[in-house]
Amino acid sequence: MAKKQKTFRPKARVPRGFRDRLGAEIVAEREMLSRISAVYEAHGFDPLETPAFEYTDALGKFLPDVDRPNQGVFSLQDDDQQWMSLRYDLTAPLARFVAENYDSLPKPFRRYQVGPVWRNEKPGPGRFRQFTQCDADTVGAPAPYADAEMCAMFCDVIEAAGINKGEYFIRVSNRKIVDGLFEKIGLDGDDSAEMRLTVMRSMDKFDRLGDTGVALLLGEGRKDESGDFTEGAKLDDANIEAVLSFLKSGQADNPLGAIEAILGETNSGSAGLAELNGIQNAIPDFADRSILFDCSVIRGLEYYTGPVFEAELTTTIKDAKGRPVQIGSVGGGGRYDGLVKRFKGVEVPAVGFSVGVSRLLAALELQQGARSAAEGPVIVLALEKDQMASYQTMAAELRAAGIRSEVYLGGSNFAKQLKYADKRAAPLAIIQGEDEREKGEITIKDLILGSELSKQIEDNAEWREEQPAQFSVPRSELVSAVKKTIARHR
Amino acid sequence: MAKKQKTFRPKARVPRGFRDRLGAEIVAEREMLSRISAVYEAHGFDPLETPAFEYTDALGKFLPDVDRPNQGVFSLQDDDQQWMSLRYDLTAPLARFVAENYDSLPKPFRRYQVGPVWRNEKPGPGRFRQFTQCDADTVGAPAPYADAEMCAMFCDVIEAAGINKGEYFIRVSNRKIVDGLFEKIGLDGDDSAEMRLTVMRSMDKFDRLGDTGVALLLGEGRKDESGDFTEGAKLDDANIEAVLSFLKSGQADNPLGAIEAILGETNSGSAGLAELNGIQNAIPDFADRSILFDCSVIRGLEYYTGPVFEAELTTTIKDAKGRPVQIGSVGGGGRYDGLVKRFKGVEVPAVGFSVGVSRLLAALELQQGARSAAEGPVIVLALEKDQMASYQTMAAELRAAGIRSEVYLGGSNFAKQLKYADKRAAPLAIIQGEDEREKGEITIKDLILGSELSKQIEDNAEWREEQPAQFSVPRSELVSAVKKTIARHR
Repeated sequence: MAKKQKTFRPKARVPRGFRDRLGAEIVAEREMLSRISAVYEAHGFDPLETPAFEYTDALGKFLPDVDRPNQGVFSLQDDDQQWMSLRYDLTAPLARFVAENYDSLPKPFRRYQVGPVWRNEKPGPGRFRQFTQCDADTVGAPAPYADAEMCAMFCDVIEAAGINKGEYFIRVSNRKIVDGLFEKIGLDGDDSAEMRLTVMRSMDKFDRLGDTGVALLLGEGRKDESGDFTEGAKLDDANIEAVLSFLKSGQADNPLGAIEAILGETNSGSAGLAELNGIQNAIPDFADRSILFDCSVIRGLEYYTGPVFEAELTTTIKDAKGRPVQIGSVGGGGRYDGLVKRFKGVEVPAVGFSVGVSRLLAALELQQGARSAAEGPVIVLALEKDQMASYQTMAAELRAAGIRSEVYLGGSNFAKQLKYADKRAAPLAIIQGEDEREKGEITIKDLILGSELSKQIEDNAEWREEQPAQFSVPRSELVSAVKKTIARHR
Repeated sequence: MAKKQKTFRPKARVPRGFRDRLGAEIVAEREMLSRISAVYEAHGFDPLETPAFEYTDALGKFLPDVDRPNQGVFSLQDDDQQWMSLRYDLTAPLARFVAENYDSLPKPFRRYQVGPVWRNEKPGPGRFRQFTQCDADTVGAPAPYADAEMCAMFCDVIEAAGINKGEYFIRVSNRKIVDGLFEKIGLDGDDSAEMRLTVMRSMDKFDRLGDTGVALLLGEGRKDESGDFTEGAKLDDANIEAVLSFLKSGQADNPLGAIEAILGETNSGSAGLAELNGIQNAIPDFADRSILFDCSVIRGLEYYTGPVFEAELTTTIKDAKGRPVQIGSVGGGGRYDGLVKRFKGVEVPAVGFSVGVSRLLAALELQQGARSAAEGPVIVLALEKDQMASYQTMAAELRAAGIRSEVYLGGSNFAKQLKYADKRAAPLAIIQGEDEREKGEITIKDLILGSELSKQIEDNAEWREEQPAQFSVPRSELVSAVKKTIARHR
């Protein structure tokens, strides 16, 4: 083993675009995902776990970055020459799983899946090459009932995560509605594909640029703040008006009525409207639900074949300093009847959504102030090496009472042990040196109070004499005294 | 998008050596891991999550298959030409993480990690290329106190998983003890490396071959059942006797005393003995713990530098038919002071263990009879499409009462809906057709009772008339009637 490379020393570094996570963040995510999973299970969804790898040909090209097909994934060639790729989402593996097990699965098939996905993209600030997804899908159920259930369950999921009613909306549109708009303004022909793309890109900026900006983009063009000019779509005034009222229909008292007034006569538009009405009618408590029909939702429409949903947090979420923060989308989904077709040749209806785990977690963190630190353990100091078993008994007694605790195991230096307890965010330390032991006592050092006091009292010497944050109790009162001390700060 | 390859249809197949998991198995694993994680956290261990990838040079060659260094992992080259590999265990990433963050970490550093690892090996029955590991390690604490804590915590973990006291043992040995044996029998020189390997291989067969078989392998050689002859190590009788009594020392009333009688005069032996005595003394309730000192535990000793532990289930675990099943090892670990040295150049003491997740899960499954199926949801049948919202209200009421339930969303065929309910292992189905609706009633079909009855009663026609498993109640009694029906079967 030690023959060659005796002096080769690799540099310890996490791979580019990846990250390590420790402690509180993992606990917060785990708890959130467990609450979300409980909602899925209550709705009859079963957990599915597929492997990290899929055969590259089975993954297909449903990558977000359509300009670089087959890029954006991590791929390698197996012993038998077949190419495998790490999954970039949880939908492509679902399609493969359903196609592979079609005959034996109950249909409709409801599953949820939680797990990491990988994207071979250029990493950036807050953009990682591995992240967690959390999806629910129903395969084999046609519109609109399964879509309705998805919208309602999406509300339950966001609320289970910890976001209150009124702090979010599920915005719902439909690909067919957008097709209806193109029919209305005469852009539904095969030769208008490029124009449709230009118009959609302009529509997607409605949030940011509002009426006036989008009107310019749809018309002659728009000069932005930096002076750059974007060529417009050159629609005539009537069509620009139609697009704008379409985008604003979500703000009407009766959005479906407003859409109908614009698109009722078009084929695609009325088909889409029927689906949206179907969703509304199949949700029993629709009026109490935070669901909005809003045609300005433009998700990857190429991918979806019917309704699309987007969960969006409203601006009432505030950071630690009380400033409102715009989180935006925390997930989305829709109907994609074509996905399994790649394998089976026949259309299999499917609808689902994906929770934006890291954004939702960030929102919760903002909302609940600084993320509550993972509860630090009580540290039992180890002052006499031959008393180690007795320290372990103290820690075990505390654990049996539901209190995280550990014995310091790193060496006998007293100051070092206290420094460690500080670093672990320990609420208190248990001290039993020879003196205490002979008296049958333990000393409790309240580290939270101690740190507060040391901030307040200028005269450190005086404070040290008083040591109000440190007191002794009989050994038999260990658990009750620790409980009392912790309760002070909660 | 649909330009080329219009007719290319990939075959839907899970990659070779990987597998999908659905439902009950995932739930059982998740619950077991959550109970184990709670033990780690109570002991002051924090969760760590490292990415799936590590740089290949940082992973090192700590693969189990030492004959094929750098084989056995999945590797690919990043954009910037650096080679990355999927982690094959959770220890190598820990070493990298500790080395990278050494100065900022509290020391000793306690962490646990749960997650998938990947092995690029030839798949076999029950051998997969992706599986879950669950590790706890303490870095920066020298022997024997941290080792003692690990042994005791390992007991807590196995018991938290659901294995009872008396059904398992943590067997503990020490690499230094084995070195002491080689000192004793004169095989401690540099020129005896090959002989040591031969002797260790023979010792490792003690479980299977017993005294006589191992004695032959240590002496002239052994012919097995098939007639194949294995050349022996050619030790003399006194040395064979020493090795055998060493292997049997674990069965003595006082194993440490028995080992001392054999190896007390050797340098390595007495160093190892001191560590084992240290472990015993630092565990307060050692006599009540299922910890055995047993020198026949031969783990990958090259890797470990001190104590090694192996959790082993005893044969009292029985399958559904009452037959005892030998599960064997359900995890192991030890002290490996050299691991971080690869990066830092200095030795950093470390000790930890890894739970054999899939074996432990298999043991629990055997022990608890057939794994209790994931609770199937109550299925609300959808007989009238315009009543969909009302069916959803029923499902929501049941969910609010803590009962998994869903509305059938696949079509209106009655028989198909019941077949679906069967396939989902639904305890019962809720039926409200036009008749029931007009009377303000619902019909509950007890599917468990129904299936039992249909097995018993030959005369199907008679059974159909009686329909004892089906009854109607007022709509307002939905939740209470469902609860009562489910309670019948629990």
